[in-house]
Amino acid sequence: MRKVAIVGIGHSKFGRRSDASLRELAFEAVKASLADADVALKDVESMVVSVASDEFSFSLQPSAQIVDYLNFNPKPSFRVEGACASGSMAVRTGWMTVASGLADLVLVVGAEKMTEISTPIATEIMGKGGDSIWEYPFGLTFPGYYALIARAHMARYGTTEEQLAQVAVKNHHYGMLNPYAHMHKEITVDEALNSFMVADPLKLYDCCLISDGAAAVLLASERLAKKISDKPVWIAGLGLGTDTLSMTGRRDLTTLSGAVVAAGQAYKMAGVKPKEIDVAVVHDCFTIAEIVAYEDLGFCKQGEGGKLIEEKRTYIGGDIPVNVDGGLKSKGHPIGATGVSMAVEITKQLRGEAEPGRQVPHAGIGLSHNVGGNGQHVAVHIYRRED
Amino acid sequence: MRKVAIVGIGHSKFGRRSDASLRELAFEAVKASLADADVALKDVESMVVSVASDEFSFSLQPSAQIVDYLNFNPKPSFRVEGACASGSMAVRTGWMTVASGLADLVLVVGAEKMTEISTPIATEIMGKGGDSIWEYPFGLTFPGYYALIARAHMARYGTTEEQLAQVAVKNHHYGMLNPYAHMHKEITVDEALNSFMVADPLKLYDCCLISDGAAAVLLASERLAKKISDKPVWIAGLGLGTDTLSMTGRRDLTTLSGAVVAAGQAYKMAGVKPKEIDVAVVHDCFTIAEIVAYEDLGFCKQGEGGKLIEEKRTYIGGDIPVNVDGGLKSKGHPIGATGVSMAVEITKQLRGEAEPGRQVPHAGIGLSHNVGGNGQHVAVHIYRRED
Repeated sequence: MRKVAIVGIGHSKFGRRSDASLRELAFEAVKASLADADVALKDVESMVVSVASDEFSFSLQPSAQIVDYLNFNPKPSFRVEGACASGSMAVRTGWMTVASGLADLVLVVGAEKMTEISTPIATEIMGKGGDSIWEYPFGLTFPGYYALIARAHMARYGTTEEQLAQVAVKNHHYGMLNPYAHMHKEITVDEALNSFMVADPLKLYDCCLISDGAAAVLLASERLAKKISDKPVWIAGLGLGTDTLSMTGRRDLTTLSGAVVAAGQAYKMAGVKPKEIDVAVVHDCFTIAEIVAYEDLGFCKQGEGGKLIEEKRTYIGGDIPVNVDGGLKSKGHPIGATGVSMAVEITKQLRGEAEPGRQVPHAGIGLSHNVGGNGQHVAVHIYRRED
Repeated sequence: MRKVAIVGIGHSKFGRRSDASLRELAFEAVKASLADADVALKDVESMVVSVASDEFSFSLQPSAQIVDYLNFNPKPSFRVEGACASGSMAVRTGWMTVASGLADLVLVVGAEKMTEISTPIATEIMGKGGDSIWEYPFGLTFPGYYALIARAHMARYGTTEEQLAQVAVKNHHYGMLNPYAHMHKEITVDEALNSFMVADPLKLYDCCLISDGAAAVLLASERLAKKISDKPVWIAGLGLGTDTLSMTGRRDLTTLSGAVVAAGQAYKMAGVKPKEIDVAVVHDCFTIAEIVAYEDLGFCKQGEGGKLIEEKRTYIGGDIPVNVDGGLKSKGHPIGATGVSMAVEITKQLRGEAEPGRQVPHAGIGLSHNVGGNGQHVAVHIYRRED
């Protein structure tokens, strides 16, 4: 198995980017990733694009917009999709492109342009990421899905609304320190608890943002990585799990079984244990999702996720710092970009280049956890600084 | 580079399948592919899904419908997309999954359900596979794109409407012999020439069908392939090219530059020349597209594609039999399934298992050519019977 490293990273500002189209957002991230690696686009052999939705991009073939705008043609490129985990599917596919020997230098770019339409319409489009035949037509969209998960977790384990709010407070705190984050706003537990109800028990501050944005990583084979970069970050483990389309098919609402499976694969492939992870980014589309992720990834026992945040053990200085880039909650969630943004963040952390106040000291092993839909696709990746 | 073989093939009946949903069509093809390989689904390690459109599937995450219905979860699966070339992106990604060492047995399934909506609406959805910002809003959809290509080819090379009709006659002839084909109807040149005008000079019989359908292939590593199958078909060459999003960016309308690039990569990787190809399937979404493909693939010189069909050199017994499964023209074109269907057809041909009257004798090397949009993504794959 050929080794694969991240040798370049780029990130657009996330937010309501009325100044930029989908292709321009992608360009912003790609340009930064090439500059970071000091590589010219002409030397890139192949590309993988993540855009999650035809409807947001008003296109049947959204990746062609990006290929065209970058002037990447006639070189190989195509799009991958796993709803909100599309970006991690792109990192996985980029890894496979290098590992299989098809190419030595591959660009992975994720982008989404979501704020041109109203929040209710955007919520409808995303709602079709769930069971669009048997659940969506009856009114269930993502806040509702995660409200069901939250209620089940509260009922079984005594998880509290305060603990959910504490996740939001942490992620808003670190988002303040991330210049690429959509929202720069500290909040308190009281503010979170008193924000308006979206889907009981989830309130405004329990929900992530709808954002525009893009992120890019350059992947290289071992030989090339050592030539291009003096600080390559190695992709050491890849996990991918799936689950039933419908929530009614799940045996347990308090865990995402695809995440447990994906984590198992990634830990095994990388040869590491949960307690060895120095820094993690997890898919906090709603605050409850971060608490469930703690448990699914083995950062704590089942049912103890609420206590983990309450005791601030996922802050820097705690057992396992999580989402110190602000997470989807405060950094934003342009759905096709998120998985790639996670790879960018872990690379920054392992290089020791995160902004002051949010750098995890001496981070050597990082993990990303990216969920598509309400668990239909879950990717877990493990990254290492050391060769 | 690990070698990868096709060890199982499955194909649904293509057509107006009001009896089956997207997931049921996929199941039909997958079941057949497992039976063909005599393998159980539990032994398949990973899956790649091709569905081209969110809108046809009324979903943000269409692959989850298929994963769920197959009971494939929690194993790895995700979707790939390159418009009408999505199926070939899935074969490529399946190949990478095995070649990279991530898995030894991978299922690749392509499916689309297109006939539930009217043809004008389907044409609109597909129209957004072109430049949906600068061309589609002004009325240009696929018949129009290929009419422009046809007019340019006629003007430069003297290609005639009769030659276009001859492509349709050939493909309808062979489609008669393919039990999985959407349409079983012989036509004459006169009937084709007198069919109603769609986009001048393209008439009804110059246009492929809008179909429902699915196809599946099982890919295996060398070790496993030899264990599972006594007739593995090896994927020997993979090419993938891209082009400008807008037709106005093209230097030449009479060729798809992405196809030329993809063919070059595939021939080089497989170490074969165009004249060594025994059987080919090409993307005849419109009759002119097959003539352009002859030239882009090096089956004849630039401008001589019309003569190649006129002299019946792409019939069985000619230089290079093309689309003896009926092609998109008569077999049908469920867009996400087409690339996988091409891999199924070439495997049948190389195994000597095609139906009587359409089997190319002693076929040892086959080629597939699959176009996304009007050339934004083009995949060329080469397959070999011999190890």
